[in-house]
Amino acid sequence: MFSVAQIAQFLDAVVDGDASLNIVKLAPLDSAGAGQITFCAQAKFLEQLKKSEACAVLVTKEQSQFVKNTAIIVDNPYLAFAKISEWFDWRPPLVKGIAKNTSIARTAQVSPSAQICSGVVIGENTTIAEHCYIGANTVIADNCSIASGTRIEANVSIYDNVHMGQRCIVHSSAVIGADGFGFAKTTQGWQKIYQLGGVQVGSDVEIGAGTTVDRGAIADTIIGDGVKLDNQVQIAHNVHLGDHTAIAGCSAIAGSTRIGENCTIAGLSGVTGHLEITANTHVTAMSLVSRSIKEAGVYSSGTGIEKHQSWKRNVVRFRALDALVKRVKSLENEMQKLSSKG
Amino acid sequence: MFSVAQIAQFLDAVVDGDASLNIVKLAPLDSAGAGQITFCAQAKFLEQLKKSEACAVLVTKEQSQFVKNTAIIVDNPYLAFAKISEWFDWRPPLVKGIAKNTSIARTAQVSPSAQICSGVVIGENTTIAEHCYIGANTVIADNCSIASGTRIEANVSIYDNVHMGQRCIVHSSAVIGADGFGFAKTTQGWQKIYQLGGVQVGSDVEIGAGTTVDRGAIADTIIGDGVKLDNQVQIAHNVHLGDHTAIAGCSAIAGSTRIGENCTIAGLSGVTGHLEITANTHVTAMSLVSRSIKEAGVYSSGTGIEKHQSWKRNVVRFRALDALVKRVKSLENEMQKLSSKG
Amino acid sequence: MFSVAQIAQFLDAVVDGDASLNIVKLAPLDSAGAGQITFCAQAKFLEQLKKSEACAVLVTKEQSQFVKNTAIIVDNPYLAFAKISEWFDWRPPLVKGIAKNTSIARTAQVSPSAQICSGVVIGENTTIAEHCYIGANTVIADNCSIASGTRIEANVSIYDNVHMGQRCIVHSSAVIGADGFGFAKTTQGWQKIYQLGGVQVGSDVEIGAGTTVDRGAIADTIIGDGVKLDNQVQIAHNVHLGDHTAIAGCSAIAGSTRIGENCTIAGLSGVTGHLEITANTHVTAMSLVSRSIKEAGVYSSGTGIEKHQSWKRNVVRFRALDALVKRVKSLENEMQKLSSKG
Repeated sequence: MFSVAQIAQFLDAVVDGDASLNIVKLAPLDSAGAGQITFCAQAKFLEQLKKSEACAVLVTKEQSQFVKNTAIIVDNPYLAFAKISEWFDWRPPLVKGIAKNTSIARTAQVSPSAQICSGVVIGENTTIAEHCYIGANTVIADNCSIASGTRIEANVSIYDNVHMGQRCIVHSSAVIGADGFGFAKTTQGWQKIYQLGGVQVGSDVEIGAGTTVDRGAIADTIIGDGVKLDNQVQIAHNVHLGDHTAIAGCSAIAGSTRIGENCTIAGLSGVTGHLEITANTHVTAMSLVSRSIKEAGVYSSGTGIEKHQSWKRNVVRFRALDALVKRVKSLENEMQKLSSKG
Repeated sequence: MFSVAQIAQFLDAVVDGDASLNIVKLAPLDSAGAGQITFCAQAKFLEQLKKSEACAVLVTKEQSQFVKNTAIIVDNPYLAFAKISEWFDWRPPLVKGIAKNTSIARTAQVSPSAQICSGVVIGENTTIAEHCYIGANTVIADNCSIASGTRIEANVSIYDNVHMGQRCIVHSSAVIGADGFGFAKTTQGWQKIYQLGGVQVGSDVEIGAGTTVDRGAIADTIIGDGVKLDNQVQIAHNVHLGDHTAIAGCSAIAGSTRIGENCTIAGLSGVTGHLEITANTHVTAMSLVSRSIKEAGVYSSGTGIEKHQSWKRNVVRFRALDALVKRVKSLENEMQKLSSKG
Repeated sequence: MFSVAQIAQFLDAVVDGDASLNIVKLAPLDSAGAGQITFCAQAKFLEQLKKSEACAVLVTKEQSQFVKNTAIIVDNPYLAFAKISEWFDWRPPLVKGIAKNTSIARTAQVSPSAQICSGVVIGENTTIAEHCYIGANTVIADNCSIASGTRIEANVSIYDNVHMGQRCIVHSSAVIGADGFGFAKTTQGWQKIYQLGGVQVGSDVEIGAGTTVDRGAIADTIIGDGVKLDNQVQIAHNVHLGDHTAIAGCSAIAGSTRIGENCTIAGLSGVTGHLEITANTHVTAMSLVSRSIKEAGVYSSGTGIEKHQSWKRNVVRFRALDALVKRVKSLENEMQKLSSKG
């Protein structure tokens, strides 16, 4: 429970209304009521704002006139909401110590302020720093380091020689440090290339559920500070992700590709291997980046959605597109002859 | 082991042949033999039907004349096969009770008729109803409820505040209730928006291996009754899936999108965020739905497969398609001038 | 630690330099130094080769003149590097025996030379052959067999009736034998088709992190010898994968499709159900194969990446492509009339 005054002080905000009110919950604009705080992120929600029974609302100066109860005035209500969202989080405080049914290697070093849940396995020479949370049945192999304040949820697998920075979050079923997909072709099939590198993950990184980050082939795979990976993202061996780059669900980055800082890659997209993507590049959903990008901007591929019947006809035409261009070229030539005659 | 008579009675079917025969196995039409039952789903399998040595075959009235041994006559042989398939399932009956190496929180309530396998972890205030199966090393956090008859396979992760209906099946490596991908942009990078909502899953829902269903940002993510999600599907925060909608492998639904009832979405497809997809919409494989769909029907995107050499030429033309249309427009203008002159 | 002479002998290579040197590490060409071996895979790295301070370099006869220190001369330096990479692997030798917190069924047979890590669960009638490694918290259900030398990493789930060959590697969060996505439509929703088949995996198969291979509906799903599956690949029920076929990350193969030998399918690709793909077919990234392929070769789909602004215009034109072709046809007709008049 927090008072409006506490929230306003934390956000460096001005209160228009009763600052002594107590807030117990964060709720959506259209349903927030007594004891609840909400926010108005965009002008299109003004009508909802006018009707809102919320105890307190995070708004801009201009929006504050429409607030029925207490307004907390900030420059960016969405960011203010993000900042206070942690105050209402469901995660209980850490319970320091090591639960039962765990297996901690003799040479592992686990901070006494860390919480190690039931069924966790930690390998030789691995260090778990202060205030870490290691969720139930998570396995961390040998020679890893997990820096302070990092939270690893249940059923995560971390292979040998993975190093994670501070305040990271890793969600369930994620796998960090599995072998990269490296094989040399032989006449008898594929010769495995043993993957000898590790993974270096910066600080303040979030890794989504089911996301996989492969270890490097010889050198390491590198994930910069503040990188955010959604669920079921695949990061291949020796990829470098620049600081604060965010990649949405089910996207894949192929081997040895380097992506600059502050890029965003929307869901179901791919970047093929050995490319360089410059900083501040943005890729829209289900796009395939198959060449390096040197100029920052927004990139796309695909055909857009349409009714199946018309799509079927258009796709047939797509497969004859080169021929169509030649037909147009030929028409242009004939037209020019006719026009010059005329 | 079941008699033909038992099967026919369950299916409300007519037997043409020996109803006393015993069936021990369900087998494919082209290999079924003594003691085995099979089915003929489509007319194109008639030749196989005529040769089948199966002890008994599920067929339509018309097909029954071609059955060598015993025919079990039903309206829809495929549906009849589906209905009796459970009789031949490999899953052993539940072994009631709690196995060793588990960790069940003091305030958790587990029905004595449930089976809790080795290594399971169950959190505070979580309830597991009668006849549930919780597979080995699965982790269910605090404040969850799993209704009766639900089966959760091994190595599943369920976060705080997830509520599942009756008779659901959740496959291995699935993750329900991980954080949605929510961040507010700041000048220093991304500010995490703590994900405060939960997940509500209806009854008779199946969730595939490696599938992820994120918790809501403020309100809950909602999965309707009878929804079927294949493997490696990603459902983002605050998505609503209507009853009986089915989504095939590796598809992703982005945040806050609402999909109506009885939709089907084929594999590797995506639906971007904040859209509304009306009931009875069908999306073909690897399509990206990037706008709301108000009219039921079949929708597609993509170019179709072709030889790489011709595709390369056509793709170059695609990127000049707008210019091509302008060239055609210009030709049409000139043609009209010429024709009017002529 | 290995001597240059040992390495050369194993590779059947010629040493140009000091064969008595000791090698402790494999390193990249641009950073390898004392005690380290590297390789020159392509002519484009010649400048790096000339500057390399590596103790020893795997090179071709032609490249050997540019090596500062010791050259190990082979026909294919990349393949030679692959072959010796295992010598430098981080995986420690097996520690025979069964760790604590495990649950091994009474009728399971585990070879005394196998390593069973903490938290592993093994079901009834399952056999684990000699020299297998079963990683922490992995669950293997009833009636499975894992042949000799196979390595299964942490947190893998293997369902009932899965049979794996020798020397396979299965990475974390992989799921083998979950139910195929099989339902029959009814007026009340979907009737589950219980998935009664199993999975047969050949020898020398690698299955990536988070990859899912579904059990067959009635007959088995079959993965040939030497198949390599990258991370987050989805193999549906009753798929057959031919020997030595390799499938890259996040691709999906739908039900009952048969893919021949020695195919490669690049990342984020899909093959729809009930198709036949002939041997030696290669599919480029993010392509959808929606028809059978009878002729070996390289296949592609998609539009290629471009700037969002131009893409938006081209996509609008794509959706009118059929109409455009008709406009060109009409122009051609008029042109012919004009030309014949002229």
